[in-house]
Parts: sequence; structure tokens; C-alpha cells
Amino acid sequence: MSYLEQEIYEQPEILARLLSEEVENAARLAAAIRERGVQYVMVAGRGTSDNAGRYGKYLFAAMNRLPVAMATPSLFSIYGLPPRFGDALVLGISQSGQSPDIVSVLAEARRQGALTAAFTNEPDSPLAVAADHVLALHAGAERSVAATKTYTAQLAAVALVNALLSDDPALLAELQRVPEAARRTLELAPQVQRIAERYRFIDRCVVLGRGFNYANAYEVALKLKETNYIAAEPYSPADFIHGPLAMLDESYPVIVIAPAGALLDEVRSALALIRERGAELLVISDDAETLTQGRLALPLPVSLPEWLSPLITVIPGQLLALHLVLERGQDPDRPRGLHKVTLTR
Amino acid sequence: MSYLEQEIYEQPEILARLLSEEVENAARLAAAIRERGVQYVMVAGRGTSDNAGRYGKYLFAAMNRLPVAMATPSLFSIYGLPPRFGDALVLGISQSGQSPDIVSVLAEARRQGALTAAFTNEPDSPLAVAADHVLALHAGAERSVAATKTYTAQLAAVALVNALLSDDPALLAELQRVPEAARRTLELAPQVQRIAERYRFIDRCVVLGRGFNYANAYEVALKLKETNYIAAEPYSPADFIHGPLAMLDESYPVIVIAPAGALLDEVRSALALIRERGAELLVISDDAETLTQGRLALPLPVSLPEWLSPLITVIPGQLLALHLVLERGQDPDRPRGLHKVTLTR
Repeated sequence: MSYLEQEIYEQPEILARLLSEEVENAARLAAAIRERGVQYVMVAGRGTSDNAGRYGKYLFAAMNRLPVAMATPSLFSIYGLPPRFGDALVLGISQSGQSPDIVSVLAEARRQGALTAAFTNEPDSPLAVAADHVLALHAGAERSVAATKTYTAQLAAVALVNALLSDDPALLAELQRVPEAARRTLELAPQVQRIAERYRFIDRCVVLGRGFNYANAYEVALKLKETNYIAAEPYSPADFIHGPLAMLDESYPVIVIAPAGALLDEVRSALALIRERGAELLVISDDAETLTQGRLALPLPVSLPEWLSPLITVIPGQLLALHLVLERGQDPDRPRGLHKVTLTR
Repeated sequence: MSYLEQEIYEQPEILARLLSEEVENAARLAAAIRERGVQYVMVAGRGTSDNAGRYGKYLFAAMNRLPVAMATPSLFSIYGLPPRFGDALVLGISQSGQSPDIVSVLAEARRQGALTAAFTNEPDSPLAVAADHVLALHAGAERSVAATKTYTAQLAAVALVNALLSDDPALLAELQRVPEAARRTLELAPQVQRIAERYRFIDRCVVLGRGFNYANAYEVALKLKETNYIAAEPYSPADFIHGPLAMLDESYPVIVIAPAGALLDEVRSALALIRERGAELLVISDDAETLTQGRLALPLPVSLPEWLSPLITVIPGQLLALHLVLERGQDPDRPRGLHKVTLTR
């Protein structure tokens, strides 16, 4: 069995571990955010970690009224002076904790006296050392080139801090449902495998998600790119209908992540426009009516509150990336031209 | 002549008008940013306007140490409570000034007492009415479905405010060189037309740009999508080598916007990796050595300081979108399935 497959299936266990062992660290960070009067959060991450930050962007803003900016790490290392962080929380997200540009953002933030935190799988890494607060991902060594288990662990770290900031014990209780929900969602594998057969020869596609699930559109597209070399483009349906819609035709597969929630009506209107273009829709949802909008459907076997849905809605996309590699007869652990750690100055 | 072509060629004149007529409005906004002790900027825009905001994100941070967050408009209209803006400048960018979700972001910001500004082509629009400060784009009616002249006008508005915030008269003088530089850059049209012939049958490509030119990677990709239905993917080279690099092979055209500047060495290292994959590179640059890295090259006939280069480096991309439509025998003003104003709730 490939590392990619093993790590996809390790997720329920990792999520359970993180959600039991990091509550205190998360509570300390939440308390510091309140005490320091943090005005906004600046997230620094690359690739998959940047996508986890994108989840935080929607979650912190919608549930804790805290605006989130995504950092521009190149500014810190190459252009002149770094931005003034003021009353920001500067949050670095990195599996390895090694990326020099992300470390430099945190080091500068600390120098300026801003509150800093790191979410990393390596609590002794340079990133962790540079941060005031550290949440460990508890994912074990990541051997797959394509990250899966560290992504959902990063989402869980974001969700945990969010719940503790909200000071609503019901949210913490909801979080505890996630590991079992992830386990159930993995049962979609046989259905995903059949879709991978159908998708065997696609070389491009669109992945849509909105609000809390916008991050997963990016993450699923990234998995399809790095493991299967598919030109997969992530979009919010709201942005997609501003221009990119024009590129759709009958030959275009569109994957939409659309669990039940406040944004579902919006998403469904966009799906109607997309269907008019003749594009073939694959719908990932727990809403029966939305599932009928797709030519293909992956019905989520379990529902979570919308704010937590991304922790499970990404799983069918991970499985799709895996099964597509297998259908292509390739090795999931050897995508061409990629190395495990990419150092960006 | 199509509206798209007319509007591309109107740009030098519009830039000259905006840069002479909006100096006072920009100075008032810059003064308000200083007086109010603005800690960060929140930009709200969709599509092309969002790309102009992306330019501001790099510019304000690198030259005025002011962090920039991109708004998540869906949060304001659909999820519960809007974020607390605190000491933010909330900046709405919209050609028409009609987009209800962008207007709602500004209305909420004003209700909270935050400083607000609008960059719009319609100074009587709902967006302008909702803002404390307005910069008009002076672009005349935009009839082309694909926006070109309002994009460079939005970049100019961002650059003007940035120069006045910096309080360095040399920057204002540099800005005055832009209209003539844009006029000279339009002279690339015959060379672009030859590349459009070569690209006649591409259906996907990657567009790269970093730092100040990251916004243009997005904008050029968007133009190629909405006018030519090409799956054009925008990336920073730094992100691209984290995963998406795997999808490249000999059949993949890569367009890179790489003018001289602080980031050029970084970009050139990424180009070397991309060349190893056998992908065909088109380089848009004013740096002779960088131009030699491409199989195809578009040498910019004039150089601007790096911070202003995006106002001209986007022009070859606009011309490429135009000439590709013409090579395909289509009408540039009738991209399939798009309307001029898309209302997003």
C-alpha cells in the first residue's frame, strides 16, 4: 500500500489525537488573542498549509468576527521593509516547520512584538521555536509527497482554536464528532474508485467550493495537480460566474463541494448556470436535492455542522486523487519532479 | 474594430487623465489613512477588480508597511455577523460600482465607523455613495465584456494612493511616466499576433508572476479564460514549484511576467526548473538575460520601476487574449455565456 493511501486512512485517528491533546494549547492561544486585543490574523503558509489558512480566513471571520489576511512571504525576504503588524496574531502553518520564508515572517512578527503562533507537525522545528504558541499536528511522519493527513490536522487545529475563541461549549462537543465522521466518509472509497475510472483520461477540470469549503476547492485541485498532473482550477462559484464560466463546455468536468449550510442556495444557483453550459457535474454533498443536480454524485454518509464540514468534504477529493493515480497505473508516492520539502527563500 | 481592441488602445489616454485628475482625491485618502492610524487595509472586489486589489496587497505592504487582507464578501451577506474592522481602511473596487456584495461590505464598514474608500468608474454608483472617499477611474463607458482599460485604471488608482502615502515626490514623478510607457508597450502588437498564431490550438496554460506582478498573472489568466476558454492557471513561481510543477510537460505553454526588479533572481531559478520539465516558456520582460530563458520572448520596449511595471506588463497579455480570439475567428465582444455585469448577492 502506498504512503498516500496509508496516510489518507490514518486521518480519523490523527484527528482524535489532536483534538484530545491540543485543547490546552489552543485554549492558551485563544486566551492570548482575547487579552492582547488582536485586531486581525495574518496567516503565513505555502501550498497545502496556505489552504488550511484559507479555511481559517472564513472561520475566524464568520464565527469570531476576526478578519484574516494571507501573508505575502516574499515581501519579508526580498522587498525592503516588512509590514507593520500592529495588533495582529501572526500564524505560521507548515507541516515540516522548515520553510525559511514562513519562519522569517514569524521571526519578524515577534521582533515587532506581535502575538505569534505556529501549527506544525514538528514541535521542535525552526517555525515552532520562532512562535509564542505552538499547536502540534500529531500526524506522525508524513512520507507521502502529496499531503493529506497534515491538511486535515491543520484544519482541526484551526477549528479547535476557533471553538475556544467562541467560548461556546457546544462547538467543542461538535468537534469531537469529527474523527468518527471522517472514518465514515472514508467508506466512499468504492464509489470514488468508479468515478476515477470515468475520469481516467481527463486532463483538466474545475473544483468549486464556497465559504468554509472554499479552502477545499483549492486543496482538492492541488491534489489532482500534484498527483495526476490535471489542470484542476479551484474557484468559488461566485467568482467562477464572473468570467471563467466562459471556458466551460461539454468536455469539462466540474467537481463541486456543496454540503448543507447557509451558502447552499447560492451554490445551487451557480450549478444551474454550469449545467446550462453542458459541463458534467460531480456533486459532493449531504443534501439530497443538491446531489440530484450532478450527473455524478458522492453522497456524504454523515453530516457535520457547516463550519466543520471541510474536515470531511475534502476526503472524497483525496480519495479521487489516489484512485486516479492507481487507474493510471502510476506510483502515488512518486509524482514526477516533486520533492517532499521545497525550500522557498 | 471590436470594443475589446478599442479599449486596450484607449489605456494610455485614460491613465494620463486619471493621473492628472485624481491626485487631490488620492491625497485626501492618504491623509485620512495617516490621521486615522489605519492598521491594515481590507480590499473587496470580484474578478478583475479583485486582481487590482492583489496589486495593492503587495504594493501597500512593501512600500508603506501596510498589511492588506482580501475581503470575503459572502461572509457579509450570508453567514451571521460581519467581522469587526477595527482600525482598517475598507476599500471597495468595482468598475460599475453595482455589485451588491461589495457595496454591502462598504456599508457595514461605514456602520462600524471604519474608514472607507471606493475605486470605481461610476462616481454616482451605490458603491461610491457608500464610501467616505472616492477615486474615479475616468475610463469612459466600458463596452467590452472582458475588462482591460478599467483594470489598468484601477492599478493606477492604487499606485497613486501608494505614492501619496509614501510622501516621496520622486514616486509621483515616476507615475507620470506610465501613460507614455503604456503607449510604447502597445507597439508589441505585431509580435503578440505571431505568438497568437502559434497558440491557436492551446487549451490550457500556466501564467506566472511574482510580487508586484502576481496580480497580473491572475489578470492575464482571467482574460485568456473569459475570451478564449483556455484553462489558464495563475501562480506565483514560488507556489508553483510546491506541487503544481508536477503537471508540466512538453505540451504545456507557460507564460511568465518577469520584469527587472528585486524578485527577478528568484523567478529565474523557478524558470530553470520549468525548462527542465520541457515546458515551452514565453517570457515577458525588459531584462535581456531573462528573455533568453524563453523559447518565445516579448521584450518590453520600455522599462518602469518595478512597483509600476504591472501597469505595462499586463498589456502584452491583453493583446494576446485579443489576438487569440481573432486567430480563432471569433467575436472578441461576444464570449460565450457571459454578461457585462454579474450580480453576486
